[in-house]
Amino acid sequence: METLILSQRDVQQLLTMPDAIEAVEAAYIAYCSGKVNQPPIVSIDVPEHRGELDIKACYSRTNEMISVKTAVGYWDNPQNFELPTLLATLTLFDGRSGYPLCIMDGGRITGYRTGAAGGVSAKWLARKDSKTVAVIGAGTQARMQVRAIKTVLPIDTVKVWSPIKEEMERYCTDLEQELGIQVASCENPEDAVRDADIVVTATPGKAAIVQDEWIRNGTHIIAIGADMEGKQELDPRIFARARVFVDSIEQCMVRGETQNPLKAGIMTAESICGELGDVLLGKVIGRGNDDEITLFDSTGMGVQDNTTAKMIYDRAREQGVGQSLILI
Amino acid sequence: METLILSQRDVQQLLTMPDAIEAVEAAYIAYCSGKVNQPPIVSIDVPEHRGELDIKACYSRTNEMISVKTAVGYWDNPQNFELPTLLATLTLFDGRSGYPLCIMDGGRITGYRTGAAGGVSAKWLARKDSKTVAVIGAGTQARMQVRAIKTVLPIDTVKVWSPIKEEMERYCTDLEQELGIQVASCENPEDAVRDADIVVTATPGKAAIVQDEWIRNGTHIIAIGADMEGKQELDPRIFARARVFVDSIEQCMVRGETQNPLKAGIMTAESICGELGDVLLGKVIGRGNDDEITLFDSTGMGVQDNTTAKMIYDRAREQGVGQSLILI
Repeated sequence: METLILSQRDVQQLLTMPDAIEAVEAAYIAYCSGKVNQPPIVSIDVPEHRGELDIKACYSRTNEMISVKTAVGYWDNPQNFELPTLLATLTLFDGRSGYPLCIMDGGRITGYRTGAAGGVSAKWLARKDSKTVAVIGAGTQARMQVRAIKTVLPIDTVKVWSPIKEEMERYCTDLEQELGIQVASCENPEDAVRDADIVVTATPGKAAIVQDEWIRNGTHIIAIGADMEGKQELDPRIFARARVFVDSIEQCMVRGETQNPLKAGIMTAESICGELGDVLLGKVIGRGNDDEITLFDSTGMGVQDNTTAKMIYDRAREQGVGQSLILI
Repeated sequence: METLILSQRDVQQLLTMPDAIEAVEAAYIAYCSGKVNQPPIVSIDVPEHRGELDIKACYSRTNEMISVKTAVGYWDNPQNFELPTLLATLTLFDGRSGYPLCIMDGGRITGYRTGAAGGVSAKWLARKDSKTVAVIGAGTQARMQVRAIKTVLPIDTVKVWSPIKEEMERYCTDLEQELGIQVASCENPEDAVRDADIVVTATPGKAAIVQDEWIRNGTHIIAIGADMEGKQELDPRIFARARVFVDSIEQCMVRGETQNPLKAGIMTAESICGELGDVLLGKVIGRGNDDEITLFDSTGMGVQDNTTAKMIYDRAREQGVGQSLILI
């Protein structure tokens, strides 16, 4: 038997946002149907080289695939080795035999499946007539989120704020050109958020940036940045007004934005409306009317890597992309 | 940059027992020098296909390599897919940048590094004039252990016992031919063990096979089979007479043969002489005289995969073996 190797260039060619959105929907449905086995993340710290390695593994009984993604972050890579800070590889194993079907670059997968998470939430929870997106942060995820939202809703305006001025200006130029919509930088986060239909927070922040007063009724909020203990981007009071959805209750209570209103006593675990997969499955009602504030807290799960990698593998087979070789 | 791919055939060509023994010595030294970071093993069970997947990762500060070995066991593979029951792949990452230097078949690595563990123990703990090896079990490890012992000591006779008759006969024919020494099958385990200089237990047993009365002074015992809770091959009373060495105190107390005398109250954790790496480092005395019974309990560690994979990678570079490609 052969193993397919997909390089970064191959994955770049094969992976599209509509596919990633479909894959993440499948991931959430599998997760909320109890068809997913995600062991704890394994981490190795390499402090002497300012690096770390994380392994996220997942088996989905829906697609019968096991994914093992190994992602590293080495902060001095650009100056020391002319290598990117973040590198990842992913191996897809046949869940029926354990055979390694495909080894692929995993760098793009994380970006796309995290972007797609916000897109899926917008598709299911935002007002259908949403036009304006406020984005806090101007990094990779600030871009991915807008790409994903644009895939599912006819948005025409993005208002971005980032504390890093040059990054914000580059963001506007790049995204306007790429997506053909208006992308404007803002003086402060309030200017971006006021009057937005969708608010995205995608910073590594550790304190509230977006205040409760700025959020009008009918808004959908996508909380992306907070994915570890101690992280925060939203005024916890927003949670008292919003209908709160999460990717994983277990994870978000500890590592998501949801940790903050829980700690502050502003909400309890019981106030969480549910996991997004349950909305897709029709088990939980999503948006009830145009006045509700909806909030989606995303921390990221191995099953998103799993279904996205499976989508890439299927596309590669269809299109004859990649290099097959005998490994085992 | 490029990633080197080493197929099963490549690894087969590159990996020798003397190299594996050198690599496992380096592994034990690194481990006992506090230079190793081995996160907990991650497991995914796939009960509906009678399979499981285990991930063993390790960073060694000595060689600055991170290894991630993914091993699967699918018991129905031979009849369902004409595939082996056990399959493994291993990726070696540069510990300074996180770059994936090499992806290789990992199936042989486990066999060799586990065999080499027994060989290293024989080299450092058995009597130098050891000639006769008793082997309980006739599977892969029963072969590997003898290959490894033969590499470090001038043994001339093997006496094997296995409850599976045909396996035992095949073992004798194969090993006699391969190693050019006398390999005789035995009617019962006692016949194999009595008068042996070295005793190897390599079965998946869950009860004592080798009795205390059969072990004469001066013997070295290699306990390989027990690597999980509930496993056992030795009469626990042997531990009261023996000087006990382990690969990892932490692991062996829970998962090694050592768990049994501890549970039976026959010995305490304090009676363990030490880890084999400490003997190599000169921190702990190994065999004191020709009358002592020495016992080595091996459970297997990620660092053995790490140093063995590094050895294979170095050999591949020296000899120009494998296929380089651009993955990332």
